[in-house]
This record gives sequence, structure tokens and C-alpha cells, in this order.
Amino acid sequence: MTHHEAIAPTGQPAQYGLISFKNLATAVLPLHDDGFVTLVGQNRFAHADYSWELPEGGAPLDEDPLDGAKRELAEETGLQAREWRKILHVQLSNSVTDECGVGYLALGLSRSDGRHHRDATEALALARVPFRQALDAALAGHLKDVLTVAMLLRAYHMAREGDLPDALASVMLG
Amino acid sequence: MTHHEAIAPTGQPAQYGLISFKNLATAVLPLHDDGFVTLVGQNRFAHADYSWELPEGGAPLDEDPLDGAKRELAEETGLQAREWRKILHVQLSNSVTDECGVGYLALGLSRSDGRHHRDATEALALARVPFRQALDAALAGHLKDVLTVAMLLRAYHMAREGDLPDALASVMLG
Repeated sequence: MTHHEAIAPTGQPAQYGLISFKNLATAVLPLHDDGFVTLVGQNRFAHADYSWELPEGGAPLDEDPLDGAKRELAEETGLQAREWRKILHVQLSNSVTDECGVGYLALGLSRSDGRHHRDATEALALARVPFRQALDAALAGHLKDVLTVAMLLRAYHMAREGDLPDALASVMLG
Repeated sequence: MTHHEAIAPTGQPAQYGLISFKNLATAVLPLHDDGFVTLVGQNRFAHADYSWELPEGGAPLDEDPLDGAKRELAEETGLQAREWRKILHVQLSNSVTDECGVGYLALGLSRSDGRHHRDATEALALARVPFRQALDAALAGHLKDVLTVAMLLRAYHMAREGDLPDALASVMLG
């Protein structure tokens, strides 16, 4: 954490504490052709509870985040995707950090050719659930991670607005 | 920032840096009866750019966040609401902070009786824009704050799912 001198909008000097992140948070929504999504379950020490969420990771700022997203998806779920769409780009905290996040929709899923290897500090469970069930769980507060909640809502919006294949939107919303 | 010793899921000791927040981030989506929303514009030093977003603030953890949300809405926009609905409760970062955020939908808006006074370090601009225009701007990356993006998507979901008065949903989506 570093401290910065700055001029506030009022013209007065102000000091801000700023936590700079070296990674870009990346999230992947793996959306299967049958309208199911794959979620990962893990302990998150920062919140001291068990969390079901999208496959997520941190891409170094000098790497194409899509490469990081593909790697995370393969490592955490053993899946690969035929089609990738960037559907979210956000700032995660306005107060003291400059962490940004990007989210990708992964379509045309199949088992990854590569080995499904997990980082030694991660112990992940996997769940394949209907899209509606995941979205309802998020809105009921059972899924709390903000990127997970925002990505599920974004996919709902795409399904409703005709931005996804009709057959897929139909099984998602049905 | 404090450092914590913990046991990783693998059973090995691990050390985590954890930034604990004293405040709960609160966001308010002021949704007018005519389907317009009020956004505030301000500099955010953490991201070094100008940001249009929902009225937001931080409520002390021992305060009812709804009270904080009402205060923020009045102070930043001069508005008061007849109806409040909590529509989002999320964790803002899974990696190093335990910051949580809650979002409220504010309906039945009118000018606040109280004085519209602004924090001395804030210089806010106000904009009243159609809901669709705000949502499209968020999805095009022009609004980046994650709570703002998630709340607009949540309101879209509510309008589509029949969770808002028909007349309001109609002008929002029309």
C-alpha cells in the first residue's frame, strides 16, 4: 500500500492510500449448450466462508487476459471453449484499490485436451447447474462474489435481448 | 493491512495479507417513475479517471446500511424515496480484501426536504438519463464501477421478471 498526495476536486491537498494490483481479475462464465453453467466451490480466506462462484483468476497485466481466462477454465474445470466473448469490464473498488476485472462468456464447451491440473493451494469442487438455478441462488445471496453475480445477470440480459443463439436462450430462460 | 496465518485447503500453513474494511460499500439506484435514473459524476483517484456511477458511500459496520443509503442519496442528489428495496448483497474482492457491498433500489422519488449538502472533498455532477441509456453505457464500458453495472443489470432483470410495477417496467424497457 502506498500513499499519494493529490489535489482533491475542491482544490485542497488530500492524501489517498492506494493499493495497486499487479493482476487483472478474470472471470469465466462456462455456459453449456444445454443451458447449464459450471461453478467452482472453494474456501475464500478473505471472507471466511465457502464460496460457489465462476472460475476466476488473476492475469498478469502484461498478458492478454483472454489467455489467462482460457488457462483458468482448463485448470479449474477441465473444459475448453469453441467461442469466447468479452462481456464485462469493470472496476472492483472505487475506494482504496485500483483492481479491475474482465469477464468472458465461454460457449461451445467440451472436455479440455490438456491435463486438468490444479494449483496446489486450491481445493476446488465443481457443480454443473441450470442457469436459472445459479442466477436465483446469486440473487438470493447464496452466491456472493460480485463478478459471479454480475456475469450471471449479464448472461440473462444477453439471453433476453437476442444476443445469444435462440436455442441456448430458450433453455436458459425456460 | 494485517497478515494472517491460516491453514490452506491442502492442509499446509499459508500466510494471507488481508485488508479489512471498516465500512460497508452502499449503492443506491434512484429509479424515477418515468424510467429515468440519476447518476453522479466524479473523479475517482484510485482509477485516475472521471466516473459516472450510482450514488455510493460507505456505511459504518455498526449502522443500518439503509440509513447510510438514505443519507447518501439525499446528500449526493437531493432526492428522497418513498420505497426502498435491497436488491444486491455482494463481496467486492475475493483476493485480498473483505469489502462487501449492498445495493438498494430507490422508488417513488421526490426532492428531499433536507438541505442538499455535499461532503467537502466531493465535487459531484448530476445526470438524469433514461434507464436503457445508462444500461447501454455500462455494457459499452462507459460506466465501469462494478456496483453500478451490477445494479443496472439487476434492475433490468426485475423489469423483465415482473418484479416492478408494469408501468415502470414498460418505460424502462421501451
